[in-house]
Amino acid sequence: MKGAFKTIASMFHQADPKANFAFEFWDGERVCYGDPSRPGAVTLRLKSPETAKQIIANGFLGFGEAYMDGSAELEGDLQALMRLGLRIGFDRTPPSPRQKLSLWLLRMATRNTTCRAADNICHHYDRGEDFYVLYLDPTMTYSCAYFRSPDDSLEQAQRQKYEHIARKLLLKPGERLLDIGCGWGGMLIYAVQNYGVTAVGNTISRSQYEYARRTVKELELEDRIEVVCEDYRNLTGKFDKIVSIGMFEHVGKKFIRVFMQKVSRLLEKGGLGLLHTIGKDAPSASDPWVWKYIFPGGYLPTPDEILREMGKVGFSVLDLENLRLHYARTLDLWIENYERNVEKVHRMFGDAFVRMWRLYLHLSSAGFKYGESRLYQVLFSHGLNNELPLTRDHVHVQGPV
Amino acid sequence: MKGAFKTIASMFHQADPKANFAFEFWDGERVCYGDPSRPGAVTLRLKSPETAKQIIANGFLGFGEAYMDGSAELEGDLQALMRLGLRIGFDRTPPSPRQKLSLWLLRMATRNTTCRAADNICHHYDRGEDFYVLYLDPTMTYSCAYFRSPDDSLEQAQRQKYEHIARKLLLKPGERLLDIGCGWGGMLIYAVQNYGVTAVGNTISRSQYEYARRTVKELELEDRIEVVCEDYRNLTGKFDKIVSIGMFEHVGKKFIRVFMQKVSRLLEKGGLGLLHTIGKDAPSASDPWVWKYIFPGGYLPTPDEILREMGKVGFSVLDLENLRLHYARTLDLWIENYERNVEKVHRMFGDAFVRMWRLYLHLSSAGFKYGESRLYQVLFSHGLNNELPLTRDHVHVQGPV
Repeated sequence: MKGAFKTIASMFHQADPKANFAFEFWDGERVCYGDPSRPGAVTLRLKSPETAKQIIANGFLGFGEAYMDGSAELEGDLQALMRLGLRIGFDRTPPSPRQKLSLWLLRMATRNTTCRAADNICHHYDRGEDFYVLYLDPTMTYSCAYFRSPDDSLEQAQRQKYEHIARKLLLKPGERLLDIGCGWGGMLIYAVQNYGVTAVGNTISRSQYEYARRTVKELELEDRIEVVCEDYRNLTGKFDKIVSIGMFEHVGKKFIRVFMQKVSRLLEKGGLGLLHTIGKDAPSASDPWVWKYIFPGGYLPTPDEILREMGKVGFSVLDLENLRLHYARTLDLWIENYERNVEKVHRMFGDAFVRMWRLYLHLSSAGFKYGESRLYQVLFSHGLNNELPLTRDHVHVQGPV
Repeated sequence: MKGAFKTIASMFHQADPKANFAFEFWDGERVCYGDPSRPGAVTLRLKSPETAKQIIANGFLGFGEAYMDGSAELEGDLQALMRLGLRIGFDRTPPSPRQKLSLWLLRMATRNTTCRAADNICHHYDRGEDFYVLYLDPTMTYSCAYFRSPDDSLEQAQRQKYEHIARKLLLKPGERLLDIGCGWGGMLIYAVQNYGVTAVGNTISRSQYEYARRTVKELELEDRIEVVCEDYRNLTGKFDKIVSIGMFEHVGKKFIRVFMQKVSRLLEKGGLGLLHTIGKDAPSASDPWVWKYIFPGGYLPTPDEILREMGKVGFSVLDLENLRLHYARTLDLWIENYERNVEKVHRMFGDAFVRMWRLYLHLSSAGFKYGESRLYQVLFSHGLNNELPLTRDHVHVQGPV
């Protein structure tokens, strides 16, 4: 098993001869390239031959599980290791037949039917806001922020994201806005306070629903914001504008069409919609570790899958923007917050969880920087609207947020 | 036959009760809705029962041919008639079996194989610049312009288009730019003069090639611009940036993959490309009249067809912008120029051609305003490039052009 890891180390070195990293084995033996004490360097420590075997047999799923149970340790820059792994295609290691079967069973059990979707969502979001406040910003926004400058604070960048979306959607006083998958209510509140719309938002996380209702009540916005605990497939009404931010990842490949059909029934003719979602340039298998531990039921669509189904329901795509590096920066700021509060996380959920969540955050950031993850904002109109501004200048005008 | 047209008239009226239009038959009978003397009104005159029969049997192809040979006449706002036709779906009239066969034969004969493509292009572009100068602007740009304001002149808007693309591509002095399908050379000259790049452009129209070479020589830019008369499939070399403006429409559905594979071989890793093309939100049959008389071999792709093939060759989509109404405005300004010079066109090509080209220009404009035509600009990187600006503000900064 050491041999396999020595081969991997030499592939890492070939992929990036300047990378500083080391592998340490259970018996103290060490394979080292460059200077593993430098900033940006990383050391992987394997505690037993079984750990090494598990990683070789199961690829990233094996590594993730070994990291979670402590039999594999990392020191230094986790994302540097992921970058090297992505460079040599370690994420594309084909799963073993046994792993394939267990993933297939998991996939069947987590399909996003209306009655199953809530369980999948609760798996991730119902840890309660006590956990999420430890690393999100005060607006409690759990999606990609928008950085006008890399030095923007997380809260500022999240407000800028809401502003960016509001400008793209050309929100106007008196319009009815629907936010599909409204989370803790950040976009609803921003749009109502800054653009004078009335808004409806839905979530199927009980914990988000209660938090959002409470916040709306505290801000005395109950006459202008309605939050419902309801699957998107059950929504009714007609809206001038529709937004969905960081929810589409949970819809699932088989339900992309259902989602678009539903949106087309909810959106007025000539109305605008904005879909903000993680995706990939080209199809590839979902990461089994992320699927199993972080986002059961999740699926990262390609832009052509999105646009094809939009075309079929009569949406006209106006604008697509890829905010990939904005999500990497968002995640890095979440990681800073997370590590600052890691003792509290430890007290809440224990050691394995601390490591699992750390891995998830770093893996996500590395995916946007070096891997296949993208963040697409797709603006569309329902049918044609010849009254829209000719250019996108109004989105990019500077001004206070 | 009158009955069918009376039914169509009543469908037009139902689709838009405020529309002003009239149908006049061969025997002087007239069906009239609203006031056909008002601005924006249109009158269709049918000279014989055979004309009416031909239009009913062959849909828009039949109408186009009747308009060309003078057996159908139009007075007033041509696009108003097209708008009503699009509203009732007249463009989707299924072709008769005989028409289907003749279109299939035409399609086979005009497939864009390397040896056939030049003939298809020459059909359209080799009328010589003496014709195109009659309606294009002084930059001889035959593609969608970019209007910062609807009052911009055509020439200004064409320069703004080049500037818009140059900003999206982040052109820098010393970079090598390839323009696939460079037409009469407008983008090459703009980029070299304003951004200090060196540039290569190809065209397979002999007439465009000679014009572009001559212009480059007159401007003493021969050491910085190379124009070749060559199919894109035969291009070689490596470029930092690649642009293709209004050429992809001629590539054909079966060759989208070939095009992307070729671009991926020509574009440096980390380099940027911009594809500027007419397309459609969703697939639909090519218009048989346009296919037969205007653009043999042409195909209007959907954005998902473009993005799927881009993903497959490792391109990462950064930005997609739909400039639909910019093309409508461009065409309306071409129409103004065309009508101002229509006597000259008449002397060059005769009456049927004058009517054919007028119909083509109006039909195109109506397609962008009311129909299925879109104009997509798709910006992409070859693989990942983490050095790009975070936002698109640099594209939308105001400044002189």
